[in-house]
Amino acid sequence: MSVLIVGSTALDSIKTPNAENPRLLGGSASHAAVAASFFSPVKLIGVVGHDFPKRYVQLYRRHGIDLTGLQTMPGKTFHWSGEYELNMNNRRTLLTELGVFETFNPTLPKTHQAAPFVLLANIAPALQHRVLDQMRKPKFVVADTMDLWLNIALPDLLKLLPRLDGFVLNDSEAHQLTKEDNVFAALRKIHKLGPKYVIIKKGSHGSILSSPRGFFICPAYPLHKVCDPTGAGDSFVGGMMGYLATARGSVDKNIRRAMINGSVVASFCCEGFGLNRTTKLKRAQIDQRVKELEKLTRF
Amino acid sequence: MSVLIVGSTALDSIKTPNAENPRLLGGSASHAAVAASFFSPVKLIGVVGHDFPKRYVQLYRRHGIDLTGLQTMPGKTFHWSGEYELNMNNRRTLLTELGVFETFNPTLPKTHQAAPFVLLANIAPALQHRVLDQMRKPKFVVADTMDLWLNIALPDLLKLLPRLDGFVLNDSEAHQLTKEDNVFAALRKIHKLGPKYVIIKKGSHGSILSSPRGFFICPAYPLHKVCDPTGAGDSFVGGMMGYLATARGSVDKNIRRAMINGSVVASFCCEGFGLNRTTKLKRAQIDQRVKELEKLTRF
Repeated sequence: MSVLIVGSTALDSIKTPNAENPRLLGGSASHAAVAASFFSPVKLIGVVGHDFPKRYVQLYRRHGIDLTGLQTMPGKTFHWSGEYELNMNNRRTLLTELGVFETFNPTLPKTHQAAPFVLLANIAPALQHRVLDQMRKPKFVVADTMDLWLNIALPDLLKLLPRLDGFVLNDSEAHQLTKEDNVFAALRKIHKLGPKYVIIKKGSHGSILSSPRGFFICPAYPLHKVCDPTGAGDSFVGGMMGYLATARGSVDKNIRRAMINGSVVASFCCEGFGLNRTTKLKRAQIDQRVKELEKLTRF
Repeated sequence: MSVLIVGSTALDSIKTPNAENPRLLGGSASHAAVAASFFSPVKLIGVVGHDFPKRYVQLYRRHGIDLTGLQTMPGKTFHWSGEYELNMNNRRTLLTELGVFETFNPTLPKTHQAAPFVLLANIAPALQHRVLDQMRKPKFVVADTMDLWLNIALPDLLKLLPRLDGFVLNDSEAHQLTKEDNVFAALRKIHKLGPKYVIIKKGSHGSILSSPRGFFICPAYPLHKVCDPTGAGDSFVGGMMGYLATARGSVDKNIRRAMINGSVVASFCCEGFGLNRTTKLKRAQIDQRVKELEKLTRF
């Protein structure tokens, strides 16, 4: 089955203590779509400007991503620029140029409206709503978010939560949303806001799922060196949704292994700038790290 | 087989945002010894003053702890007082009265010198050396430490590391010791300082073992509420050593399950002030949480 993914399609200029990379392909939807493409067919919903490089369109195509829902509009592609500190955990936004995103109104082709798996990757909650409004009875809808929307669009986000099956956020966002320091107390409060499946991402500490079948403690793959963590969270949730869309059986049965696969794609994402490493990945390399994670957690 | 444990035996006055508890039984050796006692016989090495309450001696005895090596000296028992912030992660030392610890010189009874498992719980590295000097070919020696010794006794600690089989420290201490932000890079550097088994504790994020058989990602048991985390790290390593001392087969075969058992005892420790919860524990309750952790990590 296919996954429909909406989110930002952007150019990222990323500075780390060791390097500077201007105008890489980035955005939540780009990372999530490429990650999902290793497991299932992907339909991308997004918008780019006339300056969007052809080689990035070709990159999407190489991953078999359906671009019928990718609009090209007059103006510039969304451009984000950020800088990481030495420990790679803290980042600072240097510049945000919304460009064509300012007037983006996602419109789904008919062929897209029946997609069974829907990932509302990080983007304004109002746009996540608009995509959901056009869907016909999807099987499993998951949304991601970021601190910005908790700050400036909380009412929209709170209205979105009851429309979701799953909600993914990081630990500091969970704290901001619930005022709870304890992850498990936060999970309990987020369930009350709507979603049955809540996943809190903790970066290099892995992630925690709370679901009708209880908790799952999902490890991160051990990395000795992080090159650039931009897009790791999007790769995680993209890989997870791609895996879920093709796995046989119920979401409950598959979601743990789906998270592990997402976690592995995220680990590769961290090993290169932007999508540089992820885009060179082979499915067999993912399977290899999944096996290693099995060994690393068995007792 | 039995575990010999040396460390601090103290009175702890603990303040949290919700409560204040004066002069609880505390210290690294007390927490580690009680935790180990659920699995194996324990020989305690420590020192207390004339003010040490009889009920705490009785508490040790109820856990079957051999007190032949616990000295009583003229003067006051070591007293530590600390305060936790609302999130229970940051703590501030309010007061440290060394008392009889100032002149403590651990002397091992003959019966103790052949103990196969030795835990040098958190205490000055010079005292950890003195205990090791008196041991006859122990099978497995593990030491814990704290930031204080990295600050004021680093040369002693660096001389201790090659004498150890295992070394346990938390993530901020690992960073302080190696200048590495990345846990796996830090582990690699610590191996070069001597120990074959290195464990980095990450509080509610669990712990990571690096050993001749590779990494193990050890989860923390999910707690919705932490009452008082004092002694959780000592309970973890104490429980681990107690488990190792009675498990059949090699350390390599048993250390993962030993860490899981230690992690579970630490979770109970966090649910009460000082040793209040740990001391009421039954082995069956530990086994129950170990089983739950198996379910929470399986995929």
